[in-house]
Amino acid sequence: MADQYAQSGEDIRLSEDIQATAHDIPALRWEEPAEGPVLVLLDQTRLPAEEVELVCTDPQALVQAIRSLAVRGAPLLGIAGAYGVALAAARGFDVEEAADALADARPTAVNLAYGVRRAQQAYRSAFGNGAGGAQSGQERAAAAALAAARALHQEDAEGSSRMAAHGLQLLDELLTGGTHRILTHCNTGALVSGGEGTAFAVALAAHRVGRLNRLWVDETRPLLQGARLTAYEAARHGMSYTLLTDSAAGSLFAAGEVDAVLIGADRIAADGSVANKVGSYPLAVLARYHHVPFIVVAPLTTVDLETPDGGSIEVEQRPGHEVTEVTAPQAPLAGVEAGGGIPVAPLGTQAYNPAFDVTPPELVTAIVTEWGVVAPVTAEALSELCDRSRQTTMS
Amino acid sequence: MADQYAQSGEDIRLSEDIQATAHDIPALRWEEPAEGPVLVLLDQTRLPAEEVELVCTDPQALVQAIRSLAVRGAPLLGIAGAYGVALAAARGFDVEEAADALADARPTAVNLAYGVRRAQQAYRSAFGNGAGGAQSGQERAAAAALAAARALHQEDAEGSSRMAAHGLQLLDELLTGGTHRILTHCNTGALVSGGEGTAFAVALAAHRVGRLNRLWVDETRPLLQGARLTAYEAARHGMSYTLLTDSAAGSLFAAGEVDAVLIGADRIAADGSVANKVGSYPLAVLARYHHVPFIVVAPLTTVDLETPDGGSIEVEQRPGHEVTEVTAPQAPLAGVEAGGGIPVAPLGTQAYNPAFDVTPPELVTAIVTEWGVVAPVTAEALSELCDRSRQTTMS
Repeated sequence: MADQYAQSGEDIRLSEDIQATAHDIPALRWEEPAEGPVLVLLDQTRLPAEEVELVCTDPQALVQAIRSLAVRGAPLLGIAGAYGVALAAARGFDVEEAADALADARPTAVNLAYGVRRAQQAYRSAFGNGAGGAQSGQERAAAAALAAARALHQEDAEGSSRMAAHGLQLLDELLTGGTHRILTHCNTGALVSGGEGTAFAVALAAHRVGRLNRLWVDETRPLLQGARLTAYEAARHGMSYTLLTDSAAGSLFAAGEVDAVLIGADRIAADGSVANKVGSYPLAVLARYHHVPFIVVAPLTTVDLETPDGGSIEVEQRPGHEVTEVTAPQAPLAGVEAGGGIPVAPLGTQAYNPAFDVTPPELVTAIVTEWGVVAPVTAEALSELCDRSRQTTMS
Repeated sequence: MADQYAQSGEDIRLSEDIQATAHDIPALRWEEPAEGPVLVLLDQTRLPAEEVELVCTDPQALVQAIRSLAVRGAPLLGIAGAYGVALAAARGFDVEEAADALADARPTAVNLAYGVRRAQQAYRSAFGNGAGGAQSGQERAAAAALAAARALHQEDAEGSSRMAAHGLQLLDELLTGGTHRILTHCNTGALVSGGEGTAFAVALAAHRVGRLNRLWVDETRPLLQGARLTAYEAARHGMSYTLLTDSAAGSLFAAGEVDAVLIGADRIAADGSVANKVGSYPLAVLARYHHVPFIVVAPLTTVDLETPDGGSIEVEQRPGHEVTEVTAPQAPLAGVEAGGGIPVAPLGTQAYNPAFDVTPPELVTAIVTEWGVVAPVTAEALSELCDRSRQTTMS
């Protein structure tokens, strides 16, 4: 039995380390109490009904938390995976075994494997490196794994900040009204990131400088990440936000109530096609029809130059019961893995339930990355930015 | 205590009268067992989980059924109201009092008051008419009220058939593929009508002649009329249908999987602007972007020449808890009248929840009525059709 226990209630502590300085809602943090180091996760399956922390004292507990979606979101999974390796090392578990289990916890999350392997590599290098002073090889390697996890965490937080700054500047250039009414979809805040997120971070930056008039939050069917998570983050930050059903966005556009659409991305093809949570494409079409900027905010790691265009992006088809049944936070994500929700459609009803849709580059006003803004969105501009980021990183 | 009792289970009987010949899912029917006449309603709040009939033996029971949304849908409410007056008359209740209570049960439903007053008028006229033969004045008047209700029911059923025929012909003219993939929104079938409905009736007509390839059913947030009611009707008819979240429609358009959009209407302004369930307008914009016909099917009584244009249509704003809480058929529409669902968004979250949106005439390919098709949609063409229908009715 993995050693994972819950700390319930409203007593979420903001520690002094990197997470607390980066944002107010620590989705995860590393702690070192006298009993030994732990990784503390905010259990996202119970939001917004309850703020409950899961305390992982061994890597298997983290594997369970990843599988149950207690921790989710591509960048955050990478960070969690790296800390998981550090936890295995610090607690004396078999690091190679732990790394494999962590990397496989959700096989489609590329970032997860990336984070795990990065910490594992640091562990191996330090272990093999004879120069040790007072530390044992094991201690040195554990410290190196933790340092790698912290570095990844830090990079992600910094990336968020830079996206937020670039995004805010773009909004100020594109919009002349002074304050912005921003429509967003799904959850792109601190709950998916080591920092304050992607699209949400831009809205938050606007809020902090007094230029967010309203954040329109799409509920984001079928799993309601907007209602459950984005509304939660917006409320925590004291932002002016209003929730709506996804298809009520049409009325807002028609009434001239949307100044810009800001979304994240799950994958960006070489031609600038953007795969993101299903429901993004209809917003792009509505935005075009109403001459409203449609802005994608994502780290450059989201750009996949191996995927030439939108048609080459494979879109995950999710189980139909996410649509034919309703679930609620109190029965956390029961519907995601094995049904178990309350049926709303007739038994036997088939559902079309793609996880993502693809927005072609001609409908995307700009892609905001931590390395700058691509606008207009072309294959050349995107490739150039990727080159520039690599040269800067290597120099 | 009103005398309304439930007949549970799968034993919904199809009686020999008008409803059964008009469609397979009798939303209501008049019966005359030995104990006295009753109005039998299919309880729509319990669909699709259970098929339960409510048997109303007095008008107050029907008032309760209308208020609880056990019976709903503008045309059907008119028919129910008329039968309610007939029931009061046949059972010896005060007809004037019953008529007022029925007409006020849902004050915004114009059709309800229309149906009530029509039966009431027939009752009064027959009562005042001395020529009676063997019947007493009361018996004669009760028979007249029932005849008025049956006539209204019949007219509505015939209107459905004519809309279905006109709509199918239009589809065959517009689409060359042979079989049609139709996307629909909300519920527009037998559950809102004395016949087989409006948009749904067209899809059903296509199904019957083997030309329906697929009915794409929008779930229709927040109250899920598509998932709960349209899927139920489609399943009962053995149609090929697939349920989807409202915003997944975008992917279908992008993949070329939609040949036409068919929706109903709650009100059509003199300029051809169409108010319909929220989520219709985004479909109209998507349809235009993808060069797909967007077809509105509605009886001519839906056209309101007193409302000059879309901007003049007042859109009902519904309570936010329909969005911030989830409910399920087992807790039937608890969320509609007083909250009581399970919260999914943080407490205190405000929601923007318009019941309808408005699609401008330039995005509507055609309006199909029982009197013919208006295409292109212009104020002149609409006004001409209204004139023609009135002249035919009066001649």
